[in-house]
Amino acid sequence: MMIRHTVTFRLKHPPGSAEEQRFLEAGRELSAISGVQNFECLRQVSAKNQFTFGLAMEFADQAAYDSYNRHPDHVAFVQRRWIPEVEDFLELDYVRL
Amino acid sequence: MMIRHTVTFRLKHPPGSAEEQRFLEAGRELSAISGVQNFECLRQVSAKNQFTFGLAMEFADQAAYDSYNRHPDHVAFVQRRWIPEVEDFLELDYVRL
Repeated sequence: MMIRHTVTFRLKHPPGSAEEQRFLEAGRELSAISGVQNFECLRQVSAKNQFTFGLAMEFADQAAYDSYNRHPDHVAFVQRRWIPEVEDFLELDYVRL
Repeated sequence: MMIRHTVTFRLKHPPGSAEEQRFLEAGRELSAISGVQNFECLRQVSAKNQFTFGLAMEFADQAAYDSYNRHPDHVAFVQRRWIPEVEDFLELDYVRL
């Protein structure tokens, strides 16, 4: 069953900064990891929460999702970019009902 | 610019209950409101948060989104179903970067 993995987040960087752009560019590179489908880099625009960006991607099944999570490029992104640069985030994963 | 409106939520009803199914059926009827595109009723499956369902839909622009928010069928759903039956929720709205 297709799984849509999403994460909404807020960066430590000032809005519009070069650091923000560099983070987003690094995030987009996750789309190259095997199994990632329909990758989207998003701006969160609702005033009803404090998040400012989002990433969304789809996996054909749980095995593809697990493989992504273990992929060295994903692990490196989390360690080198996500943990030091992200202020707050929430992961939401969906399957169609 | 296309806006993807999403809401993730948890119901007061027991999982698998008839009340849960009735709520989801009522939620699906929101797809009939003018301007709603690519409507999805979703199950939230990540163990990293406490939400269990999601709704997602797209609007062609802010005017279409505003019209949906004001639509009597949406207002009635919020008053008669959402407020009494939803335990917790988070709205996230996205535009493509």
